[in-house]
Amino acid sequence: MSNRPSFQVYLEEVTAAVTEALKHTLPDHWDVPQSLTDAMQYSLMAGGKRLRPLLVVAAAEAFGAQRTAAMPVACAVEMVHTYSLIHDDLPAMDNDDYRRGKLTNHKVYGEATAILAGDALLTHAFYSIVQAGRRSGVAADALLSIVEDMSELAGARGMVGGQVADMEGEQGMTDLSQLQYIHLHKTGDLIVFSLIAGARIGGASEGQLEALRVFGRDLGLAFQIQDDILDLTGDEQKMGKKTQSDVNQQKVTYPYFIGMEASVDEVKSLTQSAKDALERAELPDASRLLEIADYLMSRDH
Amino acid sequence: MSNRPSFQVYLEEVTAAVTEALKHTLPDHWDVPQSLTDAMQYSLMAGGKRLRPLLVVAAAEAFGAQRTAAMPVACAVEMVHTYSLIHDDLPAMDNDDYRRGKLTNHKVYGEATAILAGDALLTHAFYSIVQAGRRSGVAADALLSIVEDMSELAGARGMVGGQVADMEGEQGMTDLSQLQYIHLHKTGDLIVFSLIAGARIGGASEGQLEALRVFGRDLGLAFQIQDDILDLTGDEQKMGKKTQSDVNQQKVTYPYFIGMEASVDEVKSLTQSAKDALERAELPDASRLLEIADYLMSRDH
Repeated sequence: MSNRPSFQVYLEEVTAAVTEALKHTLPDHWDVPQSLTDAMQYSLMAGGKRLRPLLVVAAAEAFGAQRTAAMPVACAVEMVHTYSLIHDDLPAMDNDDYRRGKLTNHKVYGEATAILAGDALLTHAFYSIVQAGRRSGVAADALLSIVEDMSELAGARGMVGGQVADMEGEQGMTDLSQLQYIHLHKTGDLIVFSLIAGARIGGASEGQLEALRVFGRDLGLAFQIQDDILDLTGDEQKMGKKTQSDVNQQKVTYPYFIGMEASVDEVKSLTQSAKDALERAELPDASRLLEIADYLMSRDH
Repeated sequence: MSNRPSFQVYLEEVTAAVTEALKHTLPDHWDVPQSLTDAMQYSLMAGGKRLRPLLVVAAAEAFGAQRTAAMPVACAVEMVHTYSLIHDDLPAMDNDDYRRGKLTNHKVYGEATAILAGDALLTHAFYSIVQAGRRSGVAADALLSIVEDMSELAGARGMVGGQVADMEGEQGMTDLSQLQYIHLHKTGDLIVFSLIAGARIGGASEGQLEALRVFGRDLGLAFQIQDDILDLTGDEQKMGKKTQSDVNQQKVTYPYFIGMEASVDEVKSLTQSAKDALERAELPDASRLLEIADYLMSRDH
């Protein structure tokens, strides 16, 4: 146990390894228009917490799998997350000029190239999944299940469906069940994917996969409610110059429906139920996943 | 041989079967915003020749595979083709209001939903590929190769790269080698995919796959040059009211670079080399594929 790195060190190590792998995930020499490669690489390398790749790696390692075996799928989920951000930022969607302090993809490369760079990243993610078999010997059946999970959880039934519901929510009403639908799918489903993909690489049983689905669903929802809370805390600091127009544009959040105190309680209770589900699954070593759950809930940004 | 349906009957039969399968490729009851399902279904059902699914089916059947085994992949390639048309038609790209006489997706559902419907169709295509294993027992290794081919031939190295080159070509120069790059990738690569995916379902050898790649590449290029020729023939009929602005906007085509006569010869010679490659591959029954080659070259629209 004395050799076990602290969680902080583990986090930095995995994040660095993922970023390095992402740097090389697009072939150096391929016969592709330079602007397209540049646009794909720009957003892939624009920073971010690399949370989803971390979950793939931690889940695979919880079953004793090698980190290298998990890396192509870790890169794949980051490509899918990145494409979704590029398309979300488009003028027809959220129309954002900046993300994480850098110009958004369409501001740098133009709208058409940004759409196509997103399309190409999504498509290349599936290539990267197959490479986990070609390069690291992950079994064909596990890989096909990972492809199937990705297409369900990132597609109409998953992330894209959540994004459509979010857009429609902005145009009118929302009730708590619709907000839950948005949180579960827009953010949650890719978190669930990351966990069960890592587990499949590690050779998880059906029962363990089911437990990780519950862990991911509860963790993802807690993560989003925490985001809602942090958004509001930030807003309060700016309260002095809040205008009527700000109030009209106020985003519908968890605290809006159930109040701040109940939202804070909900984050705690979901995190606990996530951790309980994980304990029941009896993984060979769940410790890093449990640490990640605590880390996500204690963050202040 | 007396029971063998004519090519016309075969074409109608396969097209009807593909259209029926596409009707049911999105689950009837899934928890997805209605507008998203509607937008996906609208473009999937908006007609079209179903050429790519036909090639999947014909290639699989050339090796003696059942048509039903090829159908999920046939649907997948049509989903990818459909998503590419939805995104091509967007205001930021070609800005088209009509396609095949019907309003384009973004004109009916709005730009944001159209982008997301395209994303969802691309994502669902990979789901559909996996279903060829779940429902029809296609081997896992063949399916993984089909996923890999799809992600290469529809992605940055393939169709999306061709689309970017086409956009950039419209903004300035083009030389024949760039036009070839556009034709080979924007249209050709999905035709190559269809053929080798069908062949993989039928259990083709590496040598046969290679021959089908050549067949597909030459056939796809001939198909596009034929399109260029037909475009120009159409233009000539309108010559009387051609304005200087029309001339400035004239699309760079094969006849523009090598002349009309040489273009017609090129179509013939590519079709012949495609058919030669196919003959060399010694498929159990290449007759429908050869008929398709002749059919594509003799079409007048």
